[in-house]
Parts: sequence; C-alpha cells; structure tokens
Amino acid sequence: MAMTGEEYLESLRDGRQVVYRGEVIDVTTHPKFSVVHTIAKGYDKAIELTNAGTPVKTRSFPRSIDELRADIEEMQHLEGTQRVTRLAMLGLHTAAGRMAKEYPEYQRRIEAFVQRCDEFDLRVVPAITDAKGNRALGPLKQHDPDAYLRIVGRSEEGITISGAKLHVTNAALTHELLVMPTKQMKPGEEEWSVACAVPANAMGVVIMTAVPGAFAEDPAYYPYSSRPQHPYGFIVFDEVFVPWERVFLTGETQPTGGFAHSLGLWLRLDTAAVQADESDMLVGLAQLLAEANGSEKIPHIRDKIAEMVLDATVVRAGFEAAVATAKITPDGFCAPDELYTNMAKYFATMNMPKAYAIVQDIGGGSLLTAPMPEDLENPTTSAYLDKYMKAGSDMSGADRTRLFYAARDLAADANAGRRQVTYMHGAGGLYAQKLVARRHFNMDRAKQLARDAAGLSGKAADDSPETLDVAL
Amino acid sequence: MAMTGEEYLESLRDGRQVVYRGEVIDVTTHPKFSVVHTIAKGYDKAIELTNAGTPVKTRSFPRSIDELRADIEEMQHLEGTQRVTRLAMLGLHTAAGRMAKEYPEYQRRIEAFVQRCDEFDLRVVPAITDAKGNRALGPLKQHDPDAYLRIVGRSEEGITISGAKLHVTNAALTHELLVMPTKQMKPGEEEWSVACAVPANAMGVVIMTAVPGAFAEDPAYYPYSSRPQHPYGFIVFDEVFVPWERVFLTGETQPTGGFAHSLGLWLRLDTAAVQADESDMLVGLAQLLAEANGSEKIPHIRDKIAEMVLDATVVRAGFEAAVATAKITPDGFCAPDELYTNMAKYFATMNMPKAYAIVQDIGGGSLLTAPMPEDLENPTTSAYLDKYMKAGSDMSGADRTRLFYAARDLAADANAGRRQVTYMHGAGGLYAQKLVARRHFNMDRAKQLARDAAGLSGKAADDSPETLDVAL
Amino acid sequence: MAMTGEEYLESLRDGRQVVYRGEVIDVTTHPKFSVVHTIAKGYDKAIELTNAGTPVKTRSFPRSIDELRADIEEMQHLEGTQRVTRLAMLGLHTAAGRMAKEYPEYQRRIEAFVQRCDEFDLRVVPAITDAKGNRALGPLKQHDPDAYLRIVGRSEEGITISGAKLHVTNAALTHELLVMPTKQMKPGEEEWSVACAVPANAMGVVIMTAVPGAFAEDPAYYPYSSRPQHPYGFIVFDEVFVPWERVFLTGETQPTGGFAHSLGLWLRLDTAAVQADESDMLVGLAQLLAEANGSEKIPHIRDKIAEMVLDATVVRAGFEAAVATAKITPDGFCAPDELYTNMAKYFATMNMPKAYAIVQDIGGGSLLTAPMPEDLENPTTSAYLDKYMKAGSDMSGADRTRLFYAARDLAADANAGRRQVTYMHGAGGLYAQKLVARRHFNMDRAKQLARDAAGLSGKAADDSPETLDVAL
Amino acid sequence: MAMTGEEYLESLRDGRQVVYRGEVIDVTTHPKFSVVHTIAKGYDKAIELTNAGTPVKTRSFPRSIDELRADIEEMQHLEGTQRVTRLAMLGLHTAAGRMAKEYPEYQRRIEAFVQRCDEFDLRVVPAITDAKGNRALGPLKQHDPDAYLRIVGRSEEGITISGAKLHVTNAALTHELLVMPTKQMKPGEEEWSVACAVPANAMGVVIMTAVPGAFAEDPAYYPYSSRPQHPYGFIVFDEVFVPWERVFLTGETQPTGGFAHSLGLWLRLDTAAVQADESDMLVGLAQLLAEANGSEKIPHIRDKIAEMVLDATVVRAGFEAAVATAKITPDGFCAPDELYTNMAKYFATMNMPKAYAIVQDIGGGSLLTAPMPEDLENPTTSAYLDKYMKAGSDMSGADRTRLFYAARDLAADANAGRRQVTYMHGAGGLYAQKLVARRHFNMDRAKQLARDAAGLSGKAADDSPETLDVAL
Repeated sequence: MAMTGEEYLESLRDGRQVVYRGEVIDVTTHPKFSVVHTIAKGYDKAIELTNAGTPVKTRSFPRSIDELRADIEEMQHLEGTQRVTRLAMLGLHTAAGRMAKEYPEYQRRIEAFVQRCDEFDLRVVPAITDAKGNRALGPLKQHDPDAYLRIVGRSEEGITISGAKLHVTNAALTHELLVMPTKQMKPGEEEWSVACAVPANAMGVVIMTAVPGAFAEDPAYYPYSSRPQHPYGFIVFDEVFVPWERVFLTGETQPTGGFAHSLGLWLRLDTAAVQADESDMLVGLAQLLAEANGSEKIPHIRDKIAEMVLDATVVRAGFEAAVATAKITPDGFCAPDELYTNMAKYFATMNMPKAYAIVQDIGGGSLLTAPMPEDLENPTTSAYLDKYMKAGSDMSGADRTRLFYAARDLAADANAGRRQVTYMHGAGGLYAQKLVARRHFNMDRAKQLARDAAGLSGKAADDSPETLDVAL
Repeated sequence: MAMTGEEYLESLRDGRQVVYRGEVIDVTTHPKFSVVHTIAKGYDKAIELTNAGTPVKTRSFPRSIDELRADIEEMQHLEGTQRVTRLAMLGLHTAAGRMAKEYPEYQRRIEAFVQRCDEFDLRVVPAITDAKGNRALGPLKQHDPDAYLRIVGRSEEGITISGAKLHVTNAALTHELLVMPTKQMKPGEEEWSVACAVPANAMGVVIMTAVPGAFAEDPAYYPYSSRPQHPYGFIVFDEVFVPWERVFLTGETQPTGGFAHSLGLWLRLDTAAVQADESDMLVGLAQLLAEANGSEKIPHIRDKIAEMVLDATVVRAGFEAAVATAKITPDGFCAPDELYTNMAKYFATMNMPKAYAIVQDIGGGSLLTAPMPEDLENPTTSAYLDKYMKAGSDMSGADRTRLFYAARDLAADANAGRRQVTYMHGAGGLYAQKLVARRHFNMDRAKQLARDAAGLSGKAADDSPETLDVAL
Repeated sequence: MAMTGEEYLESLRDGRQVVYRGEVIDVTTHPKFSVVHTIAKGYDKAIELTNAGTPVKTRSFPRSIDELRADIEEMQHLEGTQRVTRLAMLGLHTAAGRMAKEYPEYQRRIEAFVQRCDEFDLRVVPAITDAKGNRALGPLKQHDPDAYLRIVGRSEEGITISGAKLHVTNAALTHELLVMPTKQMKPGEEEWSVACAVPANAMGVVIMTAVPGAFAEDPAYYPYSSRPQHPYGFIVFDEVFVPWERVFLTGETQPTGGFAHSLGLWLRLDTAAVQADESDMLVGLAQLLAEANGSEKIPHIRDKIAEMVLDATVVRAGFEAAVATAKITPDGFCAPDELYTNMAKYFATMNMPKAYAIVQDIGGGSLLTAPMPEDLENPTTSAYLDKYMKAGSDMSGADRTRLFYAARDLAADANAGRRQVTYMHGAGGLYAQKLVARRHFNMDRAKQLARDAAGLSGKAADDSPETLDVAL
Repeated sequence: MAMTGEEYLESLRDGRQVVYRGEVIDVTTHPKFSVVHTIAKGYDKAIELTNAGTPVKTRSFPRSIDELRADIEEMQHLEGTQRVTRLAMLGLHTAAGRMAKEYPEYQRRIEAFVQRCDEFDLRVVPAITDAKGNRALGPLKQHDPDAYLRIVGRSEEGITISGAKLHVTNAALTHELLVMPTKQMKPGEEEWSVACAVPANAMGVVIMTAVPGAFAEDPAYYPYSSRPQHPYGFIVFDEVFVPWERVFLTGETQPTGGFAHSLGLWLRLDTAAVQADESDMLVGLAQLLAEANGSEKIPHIRDKIAEMVLDATVVRAGFEAAVATAKITPDGFCAPDELYTNMAKYFATMNMPKAYAIVQDIGGGSLLTAPMPEDLENPTTSAYLDKYMKAGSDMSGADRTRLFYAARDLAADANAGRRQVTYMHGAGGLYAQKLVARRHFNMDRAKQLARDAAGLSGKAADDSPETLDVAL
C-alpha cells in the first residue's frame, strides 16, 4: 500500500508539535523544512519504479554475502529517510530474533510493528540518546530522574513514559519514533529499561528542531550545503502514553543494550559505505584543486594526495572486509563483521581533519577570499576574474572560482564541521567503536602469537613465519 | 595629527571602487561592512588615551628584549587595522635598513612614507600575493604576464602597474595599499620587481570583497562569529599610475624577497602571540564543556585536555623563546628569533584540527543538534531545555545550551574552518615556515653533533653528555 | 627430484665466494650461519610430507580467489627460503606471461628456468637493488657506470655483467640469484637493461654478508632474536659470464620495470600476511604485559590497546580486501588487488613505531633494567626476584622477568629496529607503496564524485547519498 | 677534600654486594663495568681543573636566571655520576627548604648530609621506584607488603627498612643511595613513608645489575653504543639498618611526594637540555645521510628534514622558555618553569620514533645490510666497497659504510630502543609530564579566555585580539 508523495505530506499534517525557533510550525510549508519535498519525491519515485517493474525492496534480510552486498549497494541510492527506515527494520528484526526465546511476546510485537510499517509505507527513525544529565553518573543518581527516559506509569492499556531523546535527525518528518535505551541498563535501573514505538504526533511529544545549513541558502556560494537539510530533533516525551502492543521492553534490564547494538551494526555499515565514497570524493576534490592550480605535479602536493588515497583505501578495505567475512547468524541472517565495520567508521572519522587540512592546503587562501558569485556576473568584475583567476589549466577563471566555493563549502565551512561532528558522534561514537573493536578482536589468538614469539609457550621459535626482507 | 573616528569614515568616502556581490558600494554605510565602525572607534579611543596622558605608540622600533616584549604585549590590545599598520611600519623600517647602503634613494622614500602615514594617522595594509596563474611556472612563462603584478610603463613622473593582489584583508577600509613582490624575483624578472605604495582610491584600483561570516548574523546563535568581520579584498590594478616618490623598487631583482620577508617576521610573531592565547582559549573551552557535562574527571577526557595543554604550551614556548633570544640587528633593532617564531606559528596551525576534534569530542552531538536560541525564550520549550539540558553541574540548562552554540561556532562551524585556512596561508603559509626553519637552523652544529656521536670526528665519545636515566 | 637436507648442505659446498668479517667462509660449518640447518630441515620436512601423502606445492599459479587464499595460507607455514622461491616463481611466471607476445624467446627461457628450479628443487632469491651511487642521478650520469649492474660484454655464448646487488637476504645460502633491474629503464639506458639467472657460485660472484642479531646469542636473554638469522648479502658481480639460456632481458628498456613489479605484488601480499599476524602479536604482547603488571583495566592502558587493535585490523582488512577483490589476469591467474595489498603493507609499517612505543609504555622501565637470566638461577637472587618481580597476577616473578626480556627483544632492541627498517625498505619501500597506490586508485571516479558534490557536473545534488547521523 | 680517581676505585672495594649474571663481582675489575674508569677520570679531571684555577662547582644553588643558565650549561660538560650527584644536591636542598618550617630536624639532617657528601667528594644516586607489585593497588593491598619499600623496625639507634628500588642507574658504582618515596603516600601508608641515605655497602643491600650494550663491544660496528655503559641497578634492601642521622622522613605521609618532585624538576630540566642537543644531533645525522646518498635536494627528503628541524626546535624552545621564565622560590632559589620543562621532555620523547623513522627512511636498507668492518680492511672486499658504496659525494665508500653503522647504532639498534625507553620512563614518565603540565597550566585564565570568546562573560567581543590574516 505505497504512499504517494502527496499522501506523505498530508500524513504529516497530523497535529504534531514541531517547534522551530520558538514557534510551532507546519513542517510541510515552512521554508526551512523544504527537505520534506525531497522525501515526498522519494515516495513518488518508489511508485514509479514499482510501476516500471523494478521495485526497490522495502525491507529485506540478506541471507548470503552476495545478498548483503547487493542490499547495501541498493541502499546507497535510496532517499535518506527511506534508507534509515530500512536500516531500522534490519536492526529491529535482528533484535527480535535475539529475544525470540526468552521474550516471545516482545518478538511478536516487534515483528507486527515491522509488518505494519511495511504495509502502510511508514517512515521510522530510531530515538536513542537520552539527555543523560551528569556524564559521570548513571540514571539512578541524576538530579532529575527523567535525565534518562523512563516509565512513569503502567495501566492495563499500556505505559506512560517521560524523558527526552536527543540528536534525532528527521524526527519532525517521520511517522514513527522508535524509542530504545541508550545504554546497557543494570539491575536497579528497571524503570529506565524501556523500548517502544511512538507516533510522532502522540500527545505529549514535542519536537524542537535545529536545521543545519540554515544560513547557507545561496546555491551559487554554497553548492553543497545549500541543499535541503534534514532537521535535527530534540524530542521531549512529557507523560506520553504507549499502548502495550507498541511496547517492546518494560523493565527487563538484560536485553536493553541489544536494541541499540543490533541497529548500530547496520547503521555503521551503511555509514562506512557512505564514508568510503566520501573519502574518495575528498581525494578527487584535492586532485581537482591541484589541477586547477597547476600544482598537481609538485612533489609535496602529489605526496599529500597519495596519503589521502591510502587513507581512503583503509575505509574501503574495512567495508570490503566486513562484507567479505560476513557470517550467517543463528536466525539465518548474513551480518557483516563487527570488527571491520567499526574499524572502517573509526578511521574514516579520525582522518577527516587531515583530509580537510590537505584540501585547504592545496586549495590556498582563495578558498576564503575568492570574490562573490555576483562578481562572476557583473561584466567588469567577471572580466577581471576570468583574467586573474585562470591559472593556465583548461579551467576558466569563473569555474576555478566556483571550485573554490565548493572546496570551502565541503572542507572549510559549517558543513565540514557538521559532517565531522556527525561521524564522530553518530551511529555510535568513536569511543563505542573502540569498545566494539576490543570486544570482537581475537585477543586469545593474539596473546598466543605473543607467547610463541616470546618463547614462553614452548613452541619451537623457528616454526613461526618471518618476513625475509627481499628488497626491491 | 590624530584622526577622529568620524574623520576616518569621511576619509573613506573618496571615490574608491569597492565591489561587493557585483555592485560598487559605499563601505561606510553598507550593512556588511559594519566593522568600519569598530575601526572608527579605535581612532577615537586612541585620542582618548592620548588626552588621558597614556598615549599608545603609533610606531616604535624596539631596541631591547624588554621593549620588544612590551611592544608585542601592547599591540595585542590595539584595534586590528591599527595593529597591522604598526606591523607594516616595523617591516618597512627593517626593509629600509637593509637597503640603506645599496639603494639610499629607496630607503629615503620608504622612511618618508612611514613618516607621512604616522603624521596623518593613516591605515596601511600590505598587498603581497599575486594571482600567480599556473603554480608550476614563474612570471615569465604564464599565459598572461599580469598573473604577477608588473610594471607596464615608466615616465618622468612615475610608473604604471598592472596586475592583481589577493587575500588582502581590509583593503576596502584602508588608506594605503603597500604593494610588494610575493617572492624572490630572478634575473629576467625585472618587470615584476616592483614595490610601491598606492592609495586605495587610486584610478584603476578595483577592490572586490568577500565578507566572512556574512551568514552568521545572529549573536545568540553565533556568539563569536557574529562580530563585525574584516572584509577580504581581491585588488585589481588596472594600469595604475604611481609617482616616483611612492615607488620603493623598480626592476632590481635582488632585494625583492626582502620586503615580504622583513614584514613576515613581524606578522608571524604577532600571529604567534595571538595563537598562543587562542590555543589556551581552546583548552579553556574544552574544560568548560567537560565541566558542563560532568565529564571532567573521566580519565580519557582528562588525558585529552592534558594533550591540549601540552600542545598550547609548545606555542607559548615558541613565542617566549623567540623573544628571550631576540638579537639586536645591525640597525640597532631588537628582532625576535626567526626559528622560534616560525616554529610557534607552524605548530599552532598544525595542531588546530586536533584541538577542534577534541572540543567536538568532549562537547558531543549537542554542538550541532541543540535547539535554537528562540527556544530558550518560549516558556514551554525553555522549561524543557532547563530540565533536559542541565547536567548536574552548577550551570543552567540554558547556559549549557549557549556553551554548545559557542563551541560549535568556535570549533565546528564556518568560523573554525576560516581560522584554520587563515593561519595555514596567512603571514606566510606552512610551507614558508618550513623553509625559514630550515634556513635558520644551525645545521653545521647539528652535523658536528652527529659526527661526534657517530665516532666520525675523532672526538672521544665519552666526553659527550648522556642522560643517566634515573627513574622517578 | 626432491633434495634431502644433507644434499642441500652438500650442494652449497660448491666453491661459492662468501665473505664474512673479511674472510671467505664455508657457510655449512660457520657458527654464524646456523640457519643453513633450518633450511636443510625444511628440505627434509618436504620429503616427509610427500611420503605422508600430503605434499606441499612446490609452485602453483592460483586460478580463483579460493586457490589464492589457500596458497597464501599454505605459504605462511613454509620455511623462509622455500617461501621466497615460490614467490619468485609466481613473479617470474607473471612476468613471462606479460612478455609472451613481444618477446617469446625470453618467455620460453624463463619458463624453462622455472621448470628446471622446480625439477631440481633449487632455491632462488631475487637480486634487485643496485648500488645506485648518487640517488639524484640515473645510470648514465654516475661517477662509475657499474653503480647500476650492466652488460659489459656480449659473445655468441652469452653476456658478461658487472655491478653489485644489495640487500639480498640469503644470497649466501641459495642456488640461484635472479638478477633483475631495480627500476624502469629509459631509452639510452639499454646497457643497464638486463635480467638473468646466475648460480651463486659463478666465477666472479662475491657475496659479502652481514648477520643480524649476531650479538644476541643467548636464548634466555634474547628469546626471539637468538634464533638463527638469515644473512644479508651484498653481491658483487665482477665480469660474470651468463650463457644466453639464462638471459631474460638484454638491452630492451621497455619491459625492465615489469620484472620487479610482477614479483613485488606477490612479495607485498606475503609481507602483508606476515605483518597482519605480527601486528596482532604485538597487541597480544601489550595485553600480556598489562596483565602481568595488573594494569589491564586502567583506562589509558585499555585505550592504548584498543588503538593497537584498530591499527592491526587495518592491516588485516587490507589483506582480506586484497584477496576478496582479486582479479583474474589475461593469462588466467588470480592476482590480488594492488591497491589494498600496498595499503596493508604501508600502514603495517607506518604504525610499527606506535605499536613499539605502546609496548614500551605499558611494559615500563624493567624492559631495560630487569636483572639478567642467571639471576633467575642463583638461589639468593632468584628468591629476591620471585619476591619483587611478582606483581599480584598469577604470573611468577621469574616469568614476568622473562616477559620483559621478550618485550625488550621484540619492541625495544636491535631486532625491533631491524624489522622496522626491513619493512620500510623491503619488498618495495614506503615510497613505492605510495606510487602504486596512486596509480591503482580510481582517480577519475573520485574526481566525478567531487564534481557531483561541488555542483559542477550538473547532476542533481540531492541524488547523492548522505549520512543521516542517527545518534546511538 | 677532593678524591683522586685511584681513591675512588679504592673506595668501591668496600664489601658491596654487586651481582652480575648470577655472581657477586668486583666492579673495579670486571670487564663489563669499565665505565668505572670513566668515572675515575672524572675525579682526576676535577682536581686538574681546580689546580688550574678553574674549579668546577661541586654544588650550587642558582639565584638568578643567568646563574641558572650557567649552571645547566656547565653541567652538560660533567661526567655522568658527577652530574647526577649535583642534581641530587639541588633536589635535596629544594626539598629541605620546603620542610624547614614543619620538620626542622629533617631539614638539618638533609643539609648535613649534603654538606658531608660535598666535603668527602661522594657520589650520590637517587633510588626511587619501588617494585610496586600490582599497578592497580596501593601499598596496603599488595600481596607482599615489601612491594613498596617500608619501615620494618625502629630502635633508639635508627630504623630498619625492607623492599627494593628499581631502575637505579649506577647504583653499583656510587657511594650513597638516596632512598625516597616513589609516590605521594596517603594516610594509612605511614609505614611506607620513608626517606633516607644508605651507603651502597650497607649490610643487607644487594645490587643486581644489567649492563646495556653488553653485546655491542666492537667500536667499529657500534661506534656509539660500544662506549662503556652505566649499569642499571635493581637494589634489594633486606632488613637494612639506617641510623637516625641518615633518616629524612619516617612515617609522615604529607611530605612524601615532595622529595621526588623536588628532584624531578631538576632531572627533567637536565634531561631536556640533553634531549635538545640529541634532537639536533638526529637532524644532523639525517642530513649527513642525505648528503652521503646524494639525496639531500630531493623534495620529500628536504621536507622530512625540515620537520625534524621543527620538532627539535620545540624541545629547545621548551628549554629556553623554562629558563627565561624561571622564578625565584621563597628560599631564594631560581627554579625553572615546571610547565615548559615538562613540555620539552614530553615532546622530545614523543617525537623520537618519528626521528628514528626518518633516519631509517633516508638511510635506506644499508643501515642493516652493509657488510662488516673487517670487509673494509680485506684488500679485495675493501676495493669492492670503495667502488660500490661511494655515492658520488665527497665521502669515500668506506666512510659512507661507517656512517651507516653509526646510523643503525643510533637509530635502529638496541641503543635506539634503550634511549627511547629511558626517556619514556626516566625522570618521571610521560604520564607524569601530563599530570604536571595540567597542574601548572593556568586553567582559570584559559577558561576566562573561552568565556570571553563564547560571549558568556559579558565582555565586549570586539575587544579581543584577532589575527588579520594578511597573506604573504
């Protein structure tokens, strides 16, 4: 029952409390929320593809490495909220599988929810991060018990929850908010052990929004970040009632961590795929700038671009290895390797400042000081710019100026910082990548290799391989 | 003959051709150029201080380490264009001293120009970087000979020049443009060996401008970068006539490099002083964020802040050492040490991405996703923000939100990228710092130390000092 | 016709001129060359395996990804000279295939040589690096034309060559020296365009040797590096005659680079496989030290080990991706991906100093200052060491002391430096990895991604994927 | 009452229990302890200088920046144990000053001890690091209470102590062991709060030794590390009696940390001075290698050397700034700045792996594979080496070979690892440098700068200085 774009827009006029700059707004008409039309187009395009006999999967659970690779590839071409919905479905299905044995009723409800979202073509976003209060304290010791979202009431019909969920991109433009714990809860933290699905327009839900790039509207000067932006959501749940059928966890601490973790693996794999291309893109940008400046053969420029190439290759190798060594889970799923997936996201993120710095270095001061787009139109100044901004390559002075705008926008402006912070904290921050890497690394094998090399294991030392340093 | 602020504004209504977004504008009234009033206030303040019996030096040539230290300290409190003018005077005076013997006439003209600027309280900015065309080629082989600014005519009255000078901050708001070669010219490049002073309103001068932070006008959301910004200038010299009295070099290749170099040392020392404070400021910002989040005692947070402290200390040590080892030049000047000065600027710049990343890491996702300033005013949302943005420290939720705005503005937004590019390419880029460092390092001594250690110099090895690794 | 170990030793008593410390020696009896017996055992073991019905392949050319993976895995268990011989065969076969069309006679001779080595169970080492003289000059401009090995005579029977080949591990213990150009030769450098096979005992061949670890003979104090070491060879070819049947290139400049390149890919893949395990081993060593010290749960220790895990995972991901994306070459070979292979070796090598430093950091000063092995035997001192070297874990004071010896030997002693230099310069140095990476990176695709992101390609920007920064 | 070298040797034949490789030895005759003669020569040289009317200070407490600079400079020329003794005197005097008020008796004893050492020309080494047992536990919870040295008995005559002190360079060759706590003790740890002076031959003192470089005896192949080495000491105190006059702390926890801290500042300043020269030396070594290879003008080589120059300059700047900003303490001492001193040592140590790697990179594989010293003597091989090891520069093939030996010895062999571990853990490890840096950094000022920049302090934003990004 596919929705049309128009139906999607209509569905958002449902009384939801979305606040922007201190006022409740209609997201379907507010100029800062124009990305809503991009999403609507995604709905229409899906119908077109179905009518053309090449439907995009709405959900799928890959059962082999080839299916996994194909699914990830396909997802790269989906509209953003579509992609997140599909990742959420993957994560939910994984989580449900893990709960099947001990909590069959939760499993049933989750699968019914997945089924329903699929049937009615709904958009879903996960809402995970709590306000958290003092970082050094757990839920029990906070000055305010709502610092972590919690159950404040139970009845025959369902539960009532209070708290906030932060950093929820597109909360304002989705149908369903998928609430889940931000961390593994401990005994005593039952009140905060809750997962459920809440409609974005539920009574008591208030979504405060921030729109990145809100000051970068001129496509001539901000070719990248002037695109419609996905609004961030800061969601308050002020005594929100949730009927039992939508409740997936109520007070059991043990499975709390599993929800976000199941979802996390898929989000990180997707992120790594995006970052692999983005890292390549930054290499290409550096090369375009070098060619535009006539400096592409200068040794230290070539050397820096080669380093970017190697760094970008780390990300792609992580992605390739994660897929090539994917394992079939007990429920028959093909899940990417955790260690490689996290490694890819970790280094993609860690190396961004270096990539930005190289782009800035190769680009030069004109990244900032190039005259404005209108000066490319005015006859007098455009002649000057054609004359003085041309650098001997085939590229015109005007196009070289535009390339500087783009390089600034991509690597030295608000958008560059935004992407870096996003990758640093999104889909599990860098610290989480380290934790997961340590947990999935085969430390026993590594210690045995060390004992062998150290002669502490009784194994004959000359059995171990050694590089023979043949020079070339 | 000090100018008042009002007289300064009047002096800018002199027919200058300043273009912004494709149109010629009046810099004294255009809203994007409001920094002109900050400069005007600087004029008024100087008069006040003089009237109060505590005049600020308008120019001075330090003759001892103590004077040098005092001058640099004093300059940190001057309005920006005042500071640049004074650094330019220092650089010009240094350059003049070097030319005294071989080119006494040039020296005389330079000193007369310095005298005149001082007398009439004029603002001066250096205009150095040429359009440069293809980076792999010198002036002679460019597709357009004006890629480097050059002499296109000579007469009894003076010379005529054509070309462009880029990246000239405040070109639109100054009285004098101090034109000098961007590099050491070689024999055959006489045509491009030219230095002179040109009034900003001279016939044929067109200044195209870009204003950084032009989209960051809301002081509540951009507490740092919403301040009035100094406009960048892209200056075209289209057959500009310069009378002989204002010409400081015409066709002599040998002294070409000296101009920018003389100025560079002072600019870099000043930059290093600013960067030392700025590096400390970023440490303070990280600490404020950690305290606001209640994470200041978490070991990996403490460790990261300690690394920022050490990095910031490198910059300040470079500055301190540059002053402490300053030498008196042949003209009786006290000039800071080149090696330490360049080292300070180099590492301050190289370590910015790391400092930004730590601020982003400690700050968390709310750097981006925090709701907007208006939500701190609206009664409903402000209550929510007070509740959910408070993190257990003394800081209110509203103030913590404002701290996130500031951290984003300073370390993850347009302004952060702008500062990084500025330090990377301004006052001599990183590549220049490396060149200067290599040139001023005592390589002969270092090689001798190596020969001694290597036993290749016949010196008894056990004479050389050795650390005795006493453990503590 | 497999050789026995005894026959191998006998085959080395062939009049070869091997010099060690200024004297011609017999490599089968000299105490510093005891690794010759390890090699002999490898011969015997091969016969045993054949007799047991599980023969090791002597050469093979993988035709699928699975075969490739199996071959590399199998090779990790071969004795060193066996492994290098097999890699050389792979490289020669690859090179021969490339020459088939234009130089069929060379191809025939190469394949005959491969056949012969296989038949007579010979060991082969590549001899590639020339003396090179002044690094800034090519072969033609050197003060001595022999700085690069060259053809000094031709006759009906063959050619005569003069020059030197450096860094040839096991040259003293092999049967065949596989001489090939060190670089792509240019027109005019025909005299230096020569490849051929030379028996190690040929008239005019002098092999000067250095034996690493020659001062680390005590296995108690040097558990790793006291193992028999493979001697380095500095081979002089003093007017050595080579019959035509052994000549694989004479004066054709175009195919010169291909030889070393063909071999290089296989050597680097093998190196990456070894380095993947070695990187894991260093992680294990750091963890063992932390546990021995009782510091494994201290946050900054855990964090450092997690970084080592991520770095080690980069190497393994590069290896996995190189195999997973291997391509079938025109001759039906399955060759690993160049880009990932080089990336793996590059980062494994670049990150060694960091891994060493973490091991040194976690280990502590006792890496150096621990008393000697004999003190673990003397009753008085061993009691003291048991008392004071025990750190609360299960490990005895004596074993903890031995772990310090091993950690020093592996990460802070001669062997650590040797391995680092080996990986830095062996199998194509770091600079070569950068060159190859740049060449095999899909720069056109990267530039197109950049043009799309920059809005310079006319493609609708909102089609490109974007990370949606869902936070976890 | 200056000792002669002969008297010094005689003084060591005092019954001390020094163990090397499981046996008690006479340090004045054992071949591995030949450094004892270097120390003896230091005694004789001091007498010569005194007789020549240019006596070296035996101790001194600088009272001005000029005196401080002169003292440090002078110390760089002292024999090692002389230097450590003098630093120990400085540290003791500082500690005594701090104890004067609360513990006048301890102060008196310390000053008397200093006086006595000076009078009898004795050598003193600090003995600080305990065995420590489990790193995660304090003294009270160890499996063995002697894991930290402690008081096990008290009588009218004095105290009895048991425990071990590790990493004590030259313990075997000194007169006095200066025992002090390794950390700040807490209430409850009175038993371990002890400082005292113990003669090296006291009953119950056993010194186990390790001699670095013990396998690097050939000066031709190990030009640097074949020098006589200072032995490490692992000192056991097995119920050692200490008379009251030699006891400087017994059970008072509060002043425990001050001892090592007072000493640490001076040791670190001295270390920083040594490291500044050593960093320069490595720059010189890299340059010599580049020149020997003819690669000194290759851009990436020049670039790497420039980075080494900048890194070395950080160390020297730290040293210069520490002295230039030295402060007079309440007792009238001129003490170097803690923050800059620690910064210098921190970066000198952190950057060693990079410096080593660049030397290895520039040097090339011959660092390892160069034939042996004897091959430079044998007529045949020496001719070959002259021919093939010459690289076009003025340097002969033999000298270039020797330069490779030295580069390996200094940057890729046991000695390189030893120095790195020494600086990492000696004179307070890297972790201590971070702690001290954080403590001495003016965080309040930094936070105020951040508040000002963030607009959170009410201060007018445009008063703060800003770099004006004038490009050069």
